[in-house]
Amino acid sequence: MPNIEPIFPVRWSDGRILLLDQTALPAAEVILSIETVADLADAIRRLSVRGAPALGVAGAFGVALAVDLACRAGAGREACLHAATEAARHLDGARPTAVNLRWALDRSTAHLMDGDRSAERPEDLRDRAVLFAQRILDEDLAVSRAMADHGCGVLPDPARVLTHCNTGALATGGGGTALGVVIEAARRGRKVFVHVDETRPLLQGARLTSWELMRAGIDHVVQCDGAAAWALGTGRIDVVLVGADRIAGNGDTANKVGTLGVAVAAREFGIPFYVVAPRSTVDTATPQGGAIPIEERDGEEVSGFQGVRIAPTHARAWNPAFDVTPARFISGWITERGVERPPFQP
Amino acid sequence: MPNIEPIFPVRWSDGRILLLDQTALPAAEVILSIETVADLADAIRRLSVRGAPALGVAGAFGVALAVDLACRAGAGREACLHAATEAARHLDGARPTAVNLRWALDRSTAHLMDGDRSAERPEDLRDRAVLFAQRILDEDLAVSRAMADHGCGVLPDPARVLTHCNTGALATGGGGTALGVVIEAARRGRKVFVHVDETRPLLQGARLTSWELMRAGIDHVVQCDGAAAWALGTGRIDVVLVGADRIAGNGDTANKVGTLGVAVAAREFGIPFYVVAPRSTVDTATPQGGAIPIEERDGEEVSGFQGVRIAPTHARAWNPAFDVTPARFISGWITERGVERPPFQP
Repeated sequence: MPNIEPIFPVRWSDGRILLLDQTALPAAEVILSIETVADLADAIRRLSVRGAPALGVAGAFGVALAVDLACRAGAGREACLHAATEAARHLDGARPTAVNLRWALDRSTAHLMDGDRSAERPEDLRDRAVLFAQRILDEDLAVSRAMADHGCGVLPDPARVLTHCNTGALATGGGGTALGVVIEAARRGRKVFVHVDETRPLLQGARLTSWELMRAGIDHVVQCDGAAAWALGTGRIDVVLVGADRIAGNGDTANKVGTLGVAVAAREFGIPFYVVAPRSTVDTATPQGGAIPIEERDGEEVSGFQGVRIAPTHARAWNPAFDVTPARFISGWITERGVERPPFQP
Repeated sequence: MPNIEPIFPVRWSDGRILLLDQTALPAAEVILSIETVADLADAIRRLSVRGAPALGVAGAFGVALAVDLACRAGAGREACLHAATEAARHLDGARPTAVNLRWALDRSTAHLMDGDRSAERPEDLRDRAVLFAQRILDEDLAVSRAMADHGCGVLPDPARVLTHCNTGALATGGGGTALGVVIEAARRGRKVFVHVDETRPLLQGARLTSWELMRAGIDHVVQCDGAAAWALGTGRIDVVLVGADRIAGNGDTANKVGTLGVAVAAREFGIPFYVVAPRSTVDTATPQGGAIPIEERDGEEVSGFQGVRIAPTHARAWNPAFDVTPARFISGWITERGVERPPFQP
């Protein structure tokens, strides 16, 4: 049973948000100290923190940070509340596809507004904001543990798992969604081998998932995204586990671009394909996947690599960051409630 | 109608093979002067020349080079013939999946051995070897023209084409297979827009296909391989055109890794998927795709990029260079004979 040091992607410390900078991994472990809401929005856009559940936790701490800053600047209670709603508005637009960010921002601001507390001191409001963000983090860790437990039930032993993007501790408050299942299975002494899609353009698989698996001592190979169908079609994979950025009411699931192709190939070759995500990823206001906004990022992420131009000068690139996998390709959604089989219940 | 300067990936000049170094594109146009068979084998392994038809042409010139070197060193006719067969043996193992290389080597050596020519002078043998290699090149150019003509028949106007890897002039003697169809359609004044899979790990799409399309003035976007299914599933593509490295007797087709996933997604979303390849790519000795040897290349091609390590130190990578698309996913094989519909006739 591997002894795995915990990873803390997002933490609160003395009026600052500490982020493990995911753009620097695996070459360096850099901690960013975030002291303004604008800096947090920038870190989210640059993907220093990414992964739907981690974005929720970061957003909650962003609201707390805004209240803390206003309080320390001597603002009154109403001005502190205004700072919270302004922070939520500012952060909400940073990544449009993952719904967990908005979910956490909405919960945080609603919690602060809740009830008749006109007599509350700004310091008490600040403490409530920080404690509520901490609660969202604690809930996320508990939800990760529940998903990992349910997920172990769908893994054979030994299991050969294919995964896409990063869905481990780094993508959450510190537990994990799809990769959390893999790591829990290893922790229980099961034999697991992982095919890690490198996940172009930003290589979250090659950089982050492989880093987490190396730390956990779990045997794996990194592969090009184009090799996934070949791995699935040649009997190398028992099960596919991926995360999600938003699940529509009908179960259609937005996740990192490349997921759809894996899902289509998995069904073609008879390999079970599971989405592992907290219930906070379900967006009942979006009835089906076609209505999920898909973030398109700068083409430079595709046409260049770490400052080296790959494509010819002036060549254009198309860079959708996500795709939507229709529910019909999904064997089940593993949430904190259990393994939810189709048809999806929103 | 775009005025397109011809590209010469492989040419013979005064006892040397001149290769346009495809590892340096698009940043620089470097001509390699190949003066020994060992250097040619090395250039093939390093992918300075790649693409199944181009490998055939290079192999034929490699046999000519061996004969020329022996002749210039004063060898007799038998020793020159021996040099030819040794060269063929040496080059044959350089890339195991593409069958065109062996096809050209076999044809070249058989041509030199053919008939009773015991009175032939070494110089005449050398001239025959060079002329035969030139004939293989000329045939390849003619075959490319025929495929381009037939392929235009399957393209709507306007056409939105998805392609994988590089299948243009660079991949052949100077014509093209799948990309040759696209360029011919543009030459005929048709409106074509191309989604170019970047084609990890070695980015032949982003580097080479985009370079050829820029030169030809054809509008296109480069995309991550993982975006192909999303492009196919969202109505952005009318037809998929890819090349081939080997076509088995039953039509199963080996091509650059990632092709299988594109083919599976294309069928799922009802998009026609054509293989464009000369008949020399058909290997009747291989009855079905499972028997095609798949080259596995160094994992460093996946875990690093131009000297920069992507994955954690010691992380392993799996790097199959090709995959096999079963014939059932293929709408047709566009060869010099025409658009050959299933079932495939070997």
